[in-house]
Amino acid sequence: MSESQQTQAANQKTAITPRRDQDFPEWYQQVVKAADLAENSDVRGCMVIKPWGYGIWENMQRQLDAMFKATGHRNAYFPLFIPLSYLEKEASHVEGFAKECAVVTHHRLEVGPDGKMRPAPSAQLTEPLVVRPTSETIIGASYAKWGQSYRDLPILINQWCNVVRWEMRTRLFLRTAEFLWQEGHTAHETEKEAREETDRMLEVYETFVRDHLAVPVYAGEKTEGERFAGAVQTQTIEAMVQDRKAIQAGTSHFLGQNFSKASGIEFLGRDGKKEFAWTTSWGMSTRLVGTLIMMHSDDDGLVLPPRVAPTHVVILPIIPKEETRAAVLEAANKLAALIREEIFHHAPPEVEIDTRDLNGGVKSWEWIKKGVPIRVEIGPRDLEKGTVAVTRRDKGVKEKEFLPMEEFASRVPGILQAIQTNLYERALAYRDAHTRDIDTTEEFYEFFTAKNPDRPEIHGGFVRAHWDGTAESEEKIKNDLKVTIRCIPRDAKDEEGRCIVSGRPSRRRVLWAKSY
Amino acid sequence: MSESQQTQAANQKTAITPRRDQDFPEWYQQVVKAADLAENSDVRGCMVIKPWGYGIWENMQRQLDAMFKATGHRNAYFPLFIPLSYLEKEASHVEGFAKECAVVTHHRLEVGPDGKMRPAPSAQLTEPLVVRPTSETIIGASYAKWGQSYRDLPILINQWCNVVRWEMRTRLFLRTAEFLWQEGHTAHETEKEAREETDRMLEVYETFVRDHLAVPVYAGEKTEGERFAGAVQTQTIEAMVQDRKAIQAGTSHFLGQNFSKASGIEFLGRDGKKEFAWTTSWGMSTRLVGTLIMMHSDDDGLVLPPRVAPTHVVILPIIPKEETRAAVLEAANKLAALIREEIFHHAPPEVEIDTRDLNGGVKSWEWIKKGVPIRVEIGPRDLEKGTVAVTRRDKGVKEKEFLPMEEFASRVPGILQAIQTNLYERALAYRDAHTRDIDTTEEFYEFFTAKNPDRPEIHGGFVRAHWDGTAESEEKIKNDLKVTIRCIPRDAKDEEGRCIVSGRPSRRRVLWAKSY
Repeated sequence: MSESQQTQAANQKTAITPRRDQDFPEWYQQVVKAADLAENSDVRGCMVIKPWGYGIWENMQRQLDAMFKATGHRNAYFPLFIPLSYLEKEASHVEGFAKECAVVTHHRLEVGPDGKMRPAPSAQLTEPLVVRPTSETIIGASYAKWGQSYRDLPILINQWCNVVRWEMRTRLFLRTAEFLWQEGHTAHETEKEAREETDRMLEVYETFVRDHLAVPVYAGEKTEGERFAGAVQTQTIEAMVQDRKAIQAGTSHFLGQNFSKASGIEFLGRDGKKEFAWTTSWGMSTRLVGTLIMMHSDDDGLVLPPRVAPTHVVILPIIPKEETRAAVLEAANKLAALIREEIFHHAPPEVEIDTRDLNGGVKSWEWIKKGVPIRVEIGPRDLEKGTVAVTRRDKGVKEKEFLPMEEFASRVPGILQAIQTNLYERALAYRDAHTRDIDTTEEFYEFFTAKNPDRPEIHGGFVRAHWDGTAESEEKIKNDLKVTIRCIPRDAKDEEGRCIVSGRPSRRRVLWAKSY
Repeated sequence: MSESQQTQAANQKTAITPRRDQDFPEWYQQVVKAADLAENSDVRGCMVIKPWGYGIWENMQRQLDAMFKATGHRNAYFPLFIPLSYLEKEASHVEGFAKECAVVTHHRLEVGPDGKMRPAPSAQLTEPLVVRPTSETIIGASYAKWGQSYRDLPILINQWCNVVRWEMRTRLFLRTAEFLWQEGHTAHETEKEAREETDRMLEVYETFVRDHLAVPVYAGEKTEGERFAGAVQTQTIEAMVQDRKAIQAGTSHFLGQNFSKASGIEFLGRDGKKEFAWTTSWGMSTRLVGTLIMMHSDDDGLVLPPRVAPTHVVILPIIPKEETRAAVLEAANKLAALIREEIFHHAPPEVEIDTRDLNGGVKSWEWIKKGVPIRVEIGPRDLEKGTVAVTRRDKGVKEKEFLPMEEFASRVPGILQAIQTNLYERALAYRDAHTRDIDTTEEFYEFFTAKNPDRPEIHGGFVRAHWDGTAESEEKIKNDLKVTIRCIPRDAKDEEGRCIVSGRPSRRRVLWAKSY
C-alpha cells in the first residue's frame, strides 16, 4: 500500500468504531456487541451468551465432541458442588483456586426481621460447598470407586458443563466468572499411558482449532510457574491474536499420581499389588469464542470461519417494487433449496433468507457485522439475467461476483472451504510476520515496549529466545515487561545459546509474549 | 397364565433382585445400578450420571433440540446465579422456591484460625446469590432489554443447563438436588400468541415422549394448587409407570404478564403505547431418564427404546477355542460394518463388538441388564451355517432367532422399529388396563387403597372421576389417599356428573393418581 492509499484506508468509514488500530480492547467489545454475541448480566462477572454467540459454541461443541468420541472417550456428568474438604485434599490445587471460589453456605431462604428475604440461619450447611472451578477432586472421588482393578482402567471420560472462578476484572468470553467448558478426566494404569493421553488430547485440540477455527497455534509445555495447580506437566496451545498478544486456547495436564493419591484412586495391579492410578485432565472453554473474534474479525465486525458459523449463506431479496416481491421470494426460496442439496463438511450448508421489511443496506450491514461467510443478493434485475450477486465476508465489502444461480449453488461448499483456508493462511502469515528469534537483551526489551504508552497493545508480538530455566529470569521479564513464557515449544530444536535475561547457557529457545 | 405357570415364573431366577412385584422402589434402584446408569455422590442429593445414563440423556437432548429448532427456537445461555432481589420480584415465585435454594454468600476461601479452609469473612457478598432453581427472573431481566418494540417479539429461546432445588429426600434421576434440563422462555406481543406457544410446546413434548421414548401420556391442565409458582396456567403430560403411579414428564406454562410485570418486559406496541409482554416457559429434565426406566424395564434390568439407546446392537463373539478367534472376530467386524451401512432414524445404527475376555454368559447378561435392544451371538458353528443368533431385549431372554448374516444386517432398522413400537403398545395397553372411570366415592377409595399395607405401591392406577373444582375436595383426597389431580385432560368430553368427594355437580372428569 502506498502512503496515500493508507491515508484513504484510514479515513474510510468502517462499521465498527473504533478501528482495531485505534483501540483494540474497545474494538473487541464493539465487535461482540455489533454481532449480538453476548452481553454482561447484572450478576457480577457473569455473561449472557446470546443466540448467535451460543450457536458458534454449539458448533464447536459438536465437532470437538465427535473428536473426543473418536478417541475413545464418553461423556458423563458430575456434581456442580464440591465439598470444601475435597478441594483441600490436594494442597497446591486448593491454594490455586481458593481466591476465586463461589461458596454455598445455606440451603434455604426465609423472610428476615426486616421483612426481606435472607439465607435462613437455621439452614446453614455443616460443610460449605464450592461451586466447581474445575472437577479433579469431585471426579477423583468417583474414580476411586470405579477403578478397583487394572481391568477397570483406563477410565476415559469427558464432561461438558459450567464452572465458576470468581474474577475481579472480567471481559466477555475471555474472562468471566462463570464460563462453559469441557473437562476431560482420565485414569491410567501406567505413567506412559497417561503421558500419551496428555499428548493425544493436545493434538486433538491443535487439530480442532486449526481445521475448524482456522487458528494456527504454537504447542508446547508450560514452565513450572505457569502450570495448572496440582499438575506435574501442563501442555498448551497458544494463539496470536491481532494485537499480537497470546491467548491460551487449550490445555492438557499430566497430573502424575498427585490427584490419585489425594482422592484415593488405587487399583489392584497385574502383579496383585495396590497402585495409584496416573491421571490426566484437559479442557477448552467459551474463551475460544473470544479467541476466534480477536483472531479473524476486522473493522467491519465479526468474521466467522465457515465450519463454526451458525449460518453459512444469507440470501438478501431485493424488492424495489411490490409487484416484484413474489418472483424474487420464489427465486430466493429456490436458491436456498438448491444450496441445501449441497454438502459442506458432512452436512447441508445452513442458509437463511432475510425477508425482514428493512432497508437493503441496513440488512446487509447487519450480516456483515455478524460475520456470515457468504451474502447473496437477488433482485428483479438478477432474475432477468439469471444471476445472483455474491459477496464473501473475507473479501472487501464491495467485491461482488455475479454468478448464474445454479452454478453458485453448486459452488457454495467450495467457496466456504476457500474462506476457511484463506482465514487460516491469513492468520498464519500474520503470526509468522510477528514472531521473531531474538538474541540480545536490548532487542528483546525494545520488541516488547509499546511505541505509544497510551496504547500498550501495540508491540512486536512473539519472541523465540533462550532462557536459563530459572524462575528468577522468568519473574524478571514478567515484572519488567508483563511478558511471560507462553510455552517451551514441542518442536523447538536443540540449540546452544545464552539466556536473554541472565546470559547463562541455554539449550533451547522458548516462546515469550504478552498475553490475555 | 395358569397358576402353576405363575408359580414357575415367580420362582424363576431374574437378573434383578427384588423383582418389580416384590418391591418396586428397591427394584428401581437395582435396575439403575445394574445398568450402570448413575450413582449417588457424597454431595447431598447430587448424583453422578455415568456414561451409559448420560448417553441416553444425550440422545434425548439431540432429538428434543432438533424439535425446538424446527419450531423456531434458538439456544442461549444465562447466568447460573440469580441475585436474591430478582427472585423476590415475583411474590408467589419466590415463595414457591425459597425453601429449596442453594445460596452463595462468599466469593473466596481462606485459612481460618484453626488452620482449616473456610469462606473468607472479608469476601462476603453484599447481596447473596441463589443457584438457579429455574430461570424466569434472570432471563426476564435480559428480555426487558431485548424486547423494546413489537418488532423485537416474539423472543423464542431455549437453554440447556443444570439447576438446583435442595431436596431433602432424593432418588436417582427422579428427584435430585441438582438436575439437568432444558428451559424454554418466550415473550410475545399478544396473549393469544403466548397461549398458542404454550400449547405448541406441550404438543412437542407429547410427540417427543411418544415417538422417541415410547411413553404414552395424558395431556392436560394442572389445577390451581398444582401450578408452577407464578404461572397463570400450567399444562402437563402425565405418564403411568409400572407401579401404576403417575410421573409428570414435561410441563408448559402460560405465565400471562406476571413475570413481564415483575421483570419489566415492556415494549412499544403497534399503537405506540407501552405494553407488557406475554410470556411462557416450558421444561423437561433428566427426570425423564427415571421415567423411562420405570416405564419399560423388567425383572432382568433396563429395557431401552431403540431411539434413545446409546448402542443399538451388541455383537457377542463366541470363541470356544483359540484357533477360532481370528475367523469369529473377522465375521463380527464384517457384520458390524454391514449393520452400519443401514439407516435407523436418520443415522447408522450404533454397533458395539464386545471383545472382552470374559465368560459369554456374563457378557450377555451385562448387556441384558443395560437394555441394549438387539444382541447377536456369532460363534464357529454360526460361521459354518452362515447364520447369527439374534435376541431382542423386548422378548424372552432365550427367544433366539437364527438368521443369515446379510439378511439380519438389512433387517436391523426394521427390528429396531418393531421394538420401539412394541414398547409403546405394551406401555399403552398397561396404562389403559389400569385407568378407570369411577363414579362412587366408595369405589374410588377402594381403588387407591393398597391391599397390602407394607407395599403401598400396589393399587388400582389412574382414575377418571368428576370433581367440583374446589381446592377443598382436592385437599381431602390428597390427605386421605395421597392421591392428586394429575391434570384436567385436554380431550375430556363435556359430561354431567357428581364430584367424587362432595357430590356437587361437575362438568367433566379429571385424572386422579398417586404420583412421584
